[in-house]
Amino acid sequence: CEEERERLLAQAQKPAITRDGHKVTVKANLELLDEIPLAIDFGAEGVGLFRTEYLYVVRKTLPGEEELFANYRQVVESLYPHTVTFRTLDLGGDKFAEELDLPAEINPALGLRAIRLCLKNPALFKVQLRALLRASAYGNVRIMFPLISGIEELREAKKFLQEVYLELKEEGFSIELPPCGAMIEIPTAVFIADHLAKEVDFFSIGTNDLIQYALAIDRGNEQVAHLYEPLHPGILRMIDYIVKAGHKAGIQVAMCGEMAGELLYLPLLIGFGFDELSMNPQSIPAIKDYICSLSFKKCRQLCEEVIDFSSAREVKEYLENWLGKEGLLS
Amino acid sequence: CEEERERLLAQAQKPAITRDGHKVTVKANLELLDEIPLAIDFGAEGVGLFRTEYLYVVRKTLPGEEELFANYRQVVESLYPHTVTFRTLDLGGDKFAEELDLPAEINPALGLRAIRLCLKNPALFKVQLRALLRASAYGNVRIMFPLISGIEELREAKKFLQEVYLELKEEGFSIELPPCGAMIEIPTAVFIADHLAKEVDFFSIGTNDLIQYALAIDRGNEQVAHLYEPLHPGILRMIDYIVKAGHKAGIQVAMCGEMAGELLYLPLLIGFGFDELSMNPQSIPAIKDYICSLSFKKCRQLCEEVIDFSSAREVKEYLENWLGKEGLLS
Ligand SMILES: [Mg+2]
Ligand SMILES: [Mg+2]
Repeated sequence: CEEERERLLAQAQKPAITRDGHKVTVKANLELLDEIPLAIDFGAEGVGLFRTEYLYVVRKTLPGEEELFANYRQVVESLYPHTVTFRTLDLGGDKFAEELDLPAEINPALGLRAIRLCLKNPALFKVQLRALLRASAYGNVRIMFPLISGIEELREAKKFLQEVYLELKEEGFSIELPPCGAMIEIPTAVFIADHLAKEVDFFSIGTNDLIQYALAIDRGNEQVAHLYEPLHPGILRMIDYIVKAGHKAGIQVAMCGEMAGELLYLPLLIGFGFDELSMNPQSIPAIKDYICSLSFKKCRQLCEEVIDFSSAREVKEYLENWLGKEGLLS
Repeated sequence: CEEERERLLAQAQKPAITRDGHKVTVKANLELLDEIPLAIDFGAEGVGLFRTEYLYVVRKTLPGEEELFANYRQVVESLYPHTVTFRTLDLGGDKFAEELDLPAEINPALGLRAIRLCLKNPALFKVQLRALLRASAYGNVRIMFPLISGIEELREAKKFLQEVYLELKEEGFSIELPPCGAMIEIPTAVFIADHLAKEVDFFSIGTNDLIQYALAIDRGNEQVAHLYEPLHPGILRMIDYIVKAGHKAGIQVAMCGEMAGELLYLPLLIGFGFDELSMNPQSIPAIKDYICSLSFKKCRQLCEEVIDFSSAREVKEYLENWLGKEGLLS
């Protein structure tokens, strides 16, 4: 086991390319500056999800632009030349900033969180966007908006980004507008993914939230946690639909939920055609290694076969059987 | 206005048939026995949603089989020869039965409610199913399961129904298995509607919950209530997909959410091809009258036009414009 870990680490810097030559970019989900060196050691080819709530939740007051900028700049510089995809504030739900003093909600997961909260608090949002845009001058930055439910919300968020960009240019900052993406984690966004794809540079599927909302369960609730099932055919069809809509519009599609870091699901994710998978840094070496052992063509066939199954149980049985036949069972 | 009300009431007993001969069944959503005579006066052609929580939430102990049976029997007899569609217990969420003493949940809307609660409490579920099956001998009954998220859940619910049916036959009751339906109100159920349709006799779309889950908002929460939008293109596509999947499998598709009782949405619902709309009894006369003024063919064209719009605002503008052109604006 120790040997296996060393083998994986030794190969972790190699790209993840299937046996038949299909490359998938493997990135890290991070929250702290300190995690960057380890993520690079583990073979991360950039950061697919940089969470930005930390500086807001650990203290009594909101951070200001300079503090955020200094932090983001360090992140961007430490990762250079890799790309870092910052998720704009995903507060609310179960993460709170004391100074915002938000009212208690009966169903916080269905409440004022993420992009909704930012659009209702332009000052909060703009301070972060200013810091992100200023930091973007120091490396390769992408910005993504969480919890997008419709085209109007997306346009509103992009308008703020554009506004802040023009303000900063006016103030003399030498910056460019970074690529901008939408997290697809709300069921209505799946159903209009074709429209959303025309207005962003990339998609990133947040499977944790998507699965929760799509199944209407709070997976932190042990009474219904048994229903949380990434292999539910409804979930697989959603994922398939998102990737196809993104590719049809010529944009890249990433996954940054926990599902992306699970070996069991990997043949399906490769088959669906994800351009990028982003995960816990610790999972990267094994995932990269596993991708190298797969055939893209066979993974695609697998997806075509399971996509019309009617239950998660059938999908799982078929998948395990397939792994056995392919000699991929550990 | 008083005159208009009288005109509508006088015509309320007529069927709702579009100008070009397409009939839509209009039913009532009810909860209490007392509401039945009024619903019939308003022109209800049966009950599309009979809520069954009332006898559970108003008291300290759970009702027993005999009490439920007596109540259901009266409902069934009062409506005869009309059909009554009973929704099995939809407790949990915001409706509680004291004796069940369920633990508090952080997100109750995403928790142990409706069919989930019943499947975890077989005794609770079976008592209700026994009472419903016994009452079904006295008229025309259909049974529908709320909050179905997948095929396994549906099969489990149907297994209980079958089990109770065999028990009652064994005990000498002269009953038949009534038609059995699934409420489609969870996004994953939409995505596998083709599979679900093969295992039930009808669908009923619960738009209140479907819209909430599909948009990930608690519409009781005023902070996000602005996002509750039945005309969101993602919602319209979901509805369209459900109706098509149901019809392809040869089953009837009903809508029983509040959306079904709104004049504004009616041309779309007719165009999507719903067989049945169930609503607040008070809304029935105006809805039936309005259906008679519509052309099914034109409503279908309308749906084909708006289904690829990208925002609720566009849909709404187009719809209002269309209503004007058709001379249907009040
Ligand atoms: Mg999320
Ligand atoms: Mg409901």
